[in-house]
Amino acid sequence: MKIAVDAMGGDHAPQEIIIGVEQARDLYPDVEFYLYGMEDQIRPLVKNQDRLTIIPTTETIDMGEEPVRAIRRKKDSSIVRAANAVKAGEADAFFSAGNTGAVLAAGLFIVGRIKGIDRPGLTSVLPVADPKTDQQNFVYLDTGANAESKEKNLVQFAYLGKFYAQKVLKVAQPRVALLNNGTEEDKGDKLHKAVYQLLNDDPEIDFVGNVESSELLNGRADVVVTDGWGGNAALKATEGTAKTMLSLIKNGILNGGLRAKLGYLLMKPVFGQIGKIMGTSNYGGAVMLGLKAPVVKTHGSSKADAVKNTIGQIREMLSSKVIDETVIHFSAIDQAEDVDNSSKNS
Amino acid sequence: MKIAVDAMGGDHAPQEIIIGVEQARDLYPDVEFYLYGMEDQIRPLVKNQDRLTIIPTTETIDMGEEPVRAIRRKKDSSIVRAANAVKAGEADAFFSAGNTGAVLAAGLFIVGRIKGIDRPGLTSVLPVADPKTDQQNFVYLDTGANAESKEKNLVQFAYLGKFYAQKVLKVAQPRVALLNNGTEEDKGDKLHKAVYQLLNDDPEIDFVGNVESSELLNGRADVVVTDGWGGNAALKATEGTAKTMLSLIKNGILNGGLRAKLGYLLMKPVFGQIGKIMGTSNYGGAVMLGLKAPVVKTHGSSKADAVKNTIGQIREMLSSKVIDETVIHFSAIDQAEDVDNSSKNS
Repeated sequence: MKIAVDAMGGDHAPQEIIIGVEQARDLYPDVEFYLYGMEDQIRPLVKNQDRLTIIPTTETIDMGEEPVRAIRRKKDSSIVRAANAVKAGEADAFFSAGNTGAVLAAGLFIVGRIKGIDRPGLTSVLPVADPKTDQQNFVYLDTGANAESKEKNLVQFAYLGKFYAQKVLKVAQPRVALLNNGTEEDKGDKLHKAVYQLLNDDPEIDFVGNVESSELLNGRADVVVTDGWGGNAALKATEGTAKTMLSLIKNGILNGGLRAKLGYLLMKPVFGQIGKIMGTSNYGGAVMLGLKAPVVKTHGSSKADAVKNTIGQIREMLSSKVIDETVIHFSAIDQAEDVDNSSKNS
Repeated sequence: MKIAVDAMGGDHAPQEIIIGVEQARDLYPDVEFYLYGMEDQIRPLVKNQDRLTIIPTTETIDMGEEPVRAIRRKKDSSIVRAANAVKAGEADAFFSAGNTGAVLAAGLFIVGRIKGIDRPGLTSVLPVADPKTDQQNFVYLDTGANAESKEKNLVQFAYLGKFYAQKVLKVAQPRVALLNNGTEEDKGDKLHKAVYQLLNDDPEIDFVGNVESSELLNGRADVVVTDGWGGNAALKATEGTAKTMLSLIKNGILNGGLRAKLGYLLMKPVFGQIGKIMGTSNYGGAVMLGLKAPVVKTHGSSKADAVKNTIGQIREMLSSKVIDETVIHFSAIDQAEDVDNSSKNS
């Protein structure tokens, strides 16, 4: 399998991207890499060109640039060139740690949607942090690719998440929940009430009802479906609060004298364990589900380890054929609708 | 000033309610209390009837009851009777730790909205947890009274929050922000984009732009305005994650042997300080802003201390005349619209 890598994206590019890619290359003998970016910056950092091709590009899309304009104008940027390689069938997947909006735009406009999917959903694998369950993680989408979502988008997200949980996370029968502001079925605004009914009535979805954002990390489901605005709000509040708690602890240690510092040393393994559960680098990148190929974006602050893990995630997406499964499902729906329409017209 | 108290609401009612009310009574010589509830349960718990009148009621609205139906049917419940006392002018404010929906419904249908307010907003005072600022807290609404919100509702929330910050929290010039999924002005769905422009163009609002939920506790503003669905999702994610982090720490200590337990003992003051910052009992109850009188709901799990603090908050609302200020503002708008309409008609 061949992965097109944007070597210029992220706070630590190209160095950490290249280190991570070389680690992944040494780990996965079945993967080949195409590194898109500034050749003079990349070449000196590459240790070994085995299964690794540098493809020189001349333009860079910066973190602050307006995404759609950037991908239209900068045809020779690493993001556009890597996405085009996927479109042309020269690569099987696209990886970047760069400008999220530009990666999403390149995924949508260059790689393209699966037939039958109206809107792709940006998908994260999040940790389950409840010691009372053995469940390790769950699939969460849309984390914010779409500011505005309709009922059918959320139903499609449920299927996209279900296939991802089955194929990539190996959950035989994924339980699907809807993020909502109450557990009862009549909770929420018009959109969420309607989606509740659609998911509840769907025989192919193992729907377990609403989950509140306070229970997000408690393993209530294997897939949590949400609209992009709400999904973004809940996810950022979760990440922000975890960070706030850690900074309060840090600040307390700094101001707590010798006693607190000694306490911290003794508790260090506990904090290390929490960092491991809550840390983002173990869970791979955000996947734009609903596209014709894996388009995966890791955090801009990613170091080599996160890059390596995200490559592993992409490899699992490719070898599990999760996208083929999705294509088959939605083309079957499409054909059924065609038959339905033609029988109406006849 | 006279406060009508639902003595039967909450997990620890009536005992903790009565202890808290008696503590508040002893602290505030200018406050009189009317305790609504089952006389046989309340009377034995009251130590001293100074400025404290028991008003017997025969019905109770339970935590799980459908709110609107409950307040329509149970006319002799402590919630309905206490709200009616406010409506009749026999009390100045209504306090409860009971069924949130029923308290909201009693506030809306019995106490009533201020003229010019379309939807009241459920308002919490939340902690600022960033050690880099001196700011202690901020006003946040709507935390979920309305599942569906319109542009004008959010603009009204901005004014309600501004008056509350000025009068009750004594912030001379409250900075107002909008909760949104990005800081740039073009972020969010149609609703949030439109509200951004309305607040930005309003000369009476010191609008500081969008705030993301990851920055909610960082003191970016004195008032954060949000729609009920999103406000609820972000607040519950924040509360849930704080709880999750504490349970991970607790679990780590339990499984970490003697070393971790000793570390915890040494770090106890640090955790105590964090508990104080993040704990809900210091910040009073949720206020239903936009009603003709203070209607305040504390957490169902509230103990005497939280009850006492919430009474202090109600007293501050009454003595600062925050509701009068709100009434004057919205009746001026109302009159201006009347003048505007009549000049159009003439």
